[in-house]
Amino acid sequence: MFDAKIYIERRKRLKEFVGSGILLFPGNNDVPMNYPANQYHFRQDSSFLYFFGIDEPGFNVIIDIDEDKTILFGDDFEIDDIIWMGDQPTVRERAESAGIKDTATSKELNHYIKKNGKRKIHYLPPYRADIILMISELLEMSPERVKENASIDLIKAVVSLREKKSVEEIEEIERAVNITREMHITAMKMAKPGIYERDIAGAIEGIALSKGANISFPVILTVHGETLHNHYHGNKLEEGRLIINDSGAESLLHYAGDITRTFPVGKKFTHRQKDIYTLVYNAQKAAINSLKPGVSYKEVHLIASRTFAEGLKDLGLMKGNPEDAVSEGAHALFFPHGLGHMMGLDVHDMENLGEDFVGYKEGLKRSSQFGLAYLRLAKELEPGFVFTVEPGLYFIPKLIDLWKGENKFIDFINYEKLEEYKDFGGVRIEDDYLVTETGARLLGEPIPKTVEEIEDIRSSAY
Amino acid sequence: MFDAKIYIERRKRLKEFVGSGILLFPGNNDVPMNYPANQYHFRQDSSFLYFFGIDEPGFNVIIDIDEDKTILFGDDFEIDDIIWMGDQPTVRERAESAGIKDTATSKELNHYIKKNGKRKIHYLPPYRADIILMISELLEMSPERVKENASIDLIKAVVSLREKKSVEEIEEIERAVNITREMHITAMKMAKPGIYERDIAGAIEGIALSKGANISFPVILTVHGETLHNHYHGNKLEEGRLIINDSGAESLLHYAGDITRTFPVGKKFTHRQKDIYTLVYNAQKAAINSLKPGVSYKEVHLIASRTFAEGLKDLGLMKGNPEDAVSEGAHALFFPHGLGHMMGLDVHDMENLGEDFVGYKEGLKRSSQFGLAYLRLAKELEPGFVFTVEPGLYFIPKLIDLWKGENKFIDFINYEKLEEYKDFGGVRIEDDYLVTETGARLLGEPIPKTVEEIEDIRSSAY
Repeated sequence: MFDAKIYIERRKRLKEFVGSGILLFPGNNDVPMNYPANQYHFRQDSSFLYFFGIDEPGFNVIIDIDEDKTILFGDDFEIDDIIWMGDQPTVRERAESAGIKDTATSKELNHYIKKNGKRKIHYLPPYRADIILMISELLEMSPERVKENASIDLIKAVVSLREKKSVEEIEEIERAVNITREMHITAMKMAKPGIYERDIAGAIEGIALSKGANISFPVILTVHGETLHNHYHGNKLEEGRLIINDSGAESLLHYAGDITRTFPVGKKFTHRQKDIYTLVYNAQKAAINSLKPGVSYKEVHLIASRTFAEGLKDLGLMKGNPEDAVSEGAHALFFPHGLGHMMGLDVHDMENLGEDFVGYKEGLKRSSQFGLAYLRLAKELEPGFVFTVEPGLYFIPKLIDLWKGENKFIDFINYEKLEEYKDFGGVRIEDDYLVTETGARLLGEPIPKTVEEIEDIRSSAY
Repeated sequence: MFDAKIYIERRKRLKEFVGSGILLFPGNNDVPMNYPANQYHFRQDSSFLYFFGIDEPGFNVIIDIDEDKTILFGDDFEIDDIIWMGDQPTVRERAESAGIKDTATSKELNHYIKKNGKRKIHYLPPYRADIILMISELLEMSPERVKENASIDLIKAVVSLREKKSVEEIEEIERAVNITREMHITAMKMAKPGIYERDIAGAIEGIALSKGANISFPVILTVHGETLHNHYHGNKLEEGRLIINDSGAESLLHYAGDITRTFPVGKKFTHRQKDIYTLVYNAQKAAINSLKPGVSYKEVHLIASRTFAEGLKDLGLMKGNPEDAVSEGAHALFFPHGLGHMMGLDVHDMENLGEDFVGYKEGLKRSSQFGLAYLRLAKELEPGFVFTVEPGLYFIPKLIDLWKGENKFIDFINYEKLEEYKDFGGVRIEDDYLVTETGARLLGEPIPKTVEEIEDIRSSAY
């Protein structure tokens, strides 16, 4: 974890922001796979990590702003635990490492809440069922009401702190990206006809586990890149297909990396693949070149979208005025997702607090247009923001057939030509950027990206 | 999955066993890591897999014995799901693959239960909070009461079916053990001074993900083998230490492998390490040689224990009559856990149904003696049982100090000599066995185990 001073300072600012009341931070618990004692890799709640840094299950914290007290609730190990789980720091030692002065047993949390039940108790929206149950019992409300009673004030305070990354956080994100880089280069070297997606997906997840804390999200590694979040890894690689590898590691302190590369199963891109790939590359470049404080990310998304519409027109897949096509949303047939999302302790940073609190702001409403509706980050960029830039082009047979059947956007889309592309798959390219005072900078060491760089690695692959 | 006939036959026997009422099988759902959409590897409930084979989240099944109906509840994908998650079989197709005739939407489950609320509704003890919440709402009982109201009849029926493995199940377990073998041989080849436990633990987890469905339990790979379930992987490997690697893969159909090997960080065992290792090897051999139908596994545990007490006496670490030492439990200072556990779709098979229903039987009570109390499998062996044989010897400083301070078993334990071993760590050796009509057989290809075999691999390691 970081130095205790960092956590103390973060909590000080949080208390100032919220002003009064009790802040309840439940830490995450172990989650069973197939029976209680067989557990997934422990993942602490990200806001808990941000304010306290304690990376173990079984802890809860109360910040009592009115009483100016922070209390860590947890239980020390007994001899049976030590035999099975090893010697552990005491609760008091853990508290000290986070700059917390007061500790209490887990049981005492209930007393504390009951004693102070008439004061305002703020908590963040829970996303795990055990935490929903716990809050339901602690605060005596039905489980269905727990989420809706989460504190908007606390959400806004946490977002305002976590959205701007400090120097030590940026270092952690770069560590994560550099592990992620190793995952991507390994995948580019491993791929060859005849092996399975799973062979590569497993190996790169192993790298995230070896060098970092874990993957930062489930690996997407697929020859069916047209499925945006494809977690099936059972396809055999065949010459002629493209592989989309969208994957990332967490640093040991649980900051995320998130990179996508697309490369051919064969040693070289086909002409058609090179055309589409280059267009995605150019769209990403146009987006990156426009990054700076004050620009809205919605505008950056639209810059990439217009690059797509123009390029697809050149390829004969779209027609009409590209600017009109984008404003009406026709290009979203090929680019149905948003250009990117905030990144930090979560790969979609703070998504559990509500996407609109993170990516939008008062006066900026999320669009309901297909495609743009999926844009997670839209607001004006500020120094310290970290996010992904990840344009992509996809040929989704079911979606093409649906729109074609409805004669949707026939003035913008050349459905006849599009038939030839229904077996294409998809291309996505993604990198992680930090907004600086004057522009933006790439996080982590560069990862092979141009057609030439990728073909260079692929030529020595098998 | 297996052929539909297999699931139909299993359900037929289940219905005969329970006799009447409604059987409710909730399938598992995705579990969030750090926000709702960022999910752990999906793991279906093992009993759900056993009776229906459907390996996707979002399904529930009702077996209405009185009405002779089996209904799969689930929802088909819509176009937005297809864009993000890809095209999927329909609920009807999934039902057919499991030999189920009736399907309904998820919503209809509630109606079905409400309509039949007066009849007996059997369910297995839930172990995930979301399922507890679901049952609490469906059956209108408080969450705390859900576990205690699980059906003993259904538990007994499921155990009686799942505990005897069929030919196709044994094939799956052998697939899992063979992937596990690759994990172990890789670890033996990778280890060298200067790298971290995490480097190896991550790489072998990657093998489980590449070749199988996942790890079957969290990898234990540690130079502190004296901690039985050590999941910390942050130690640097140093010449002179032993590594315990207790890990396993799941086959693609989610059957478990579970193997432990212990080997030196250096190229050779030290003399002291060789003594302890050979003793564990001999205890395992004595246990394996005694396996056959009709022998209780408690007796097999005691055979291994007596081998330990005799051997530790030869090494000067114990004294007195070995048989008395074992019956009083003095050897448990070194061997504080049970010799093994059932294995199948869960690595501790059916542990969520209650260990005593699986490993004990009426008239056979679990011992309260330290060590023996942790024995998960005690009852008489029957053909078709699959379980682990995993003796181990450990030197746990805190436990040694505790017993020494209490003058515990001073007639059996040579505490003075033991001081020299407090930096030793531990040794465990584990293989997976099937009880046959006449004896038992090792599952999977053999994995290097003798001192010579291990030193042979280690000599070419670095």
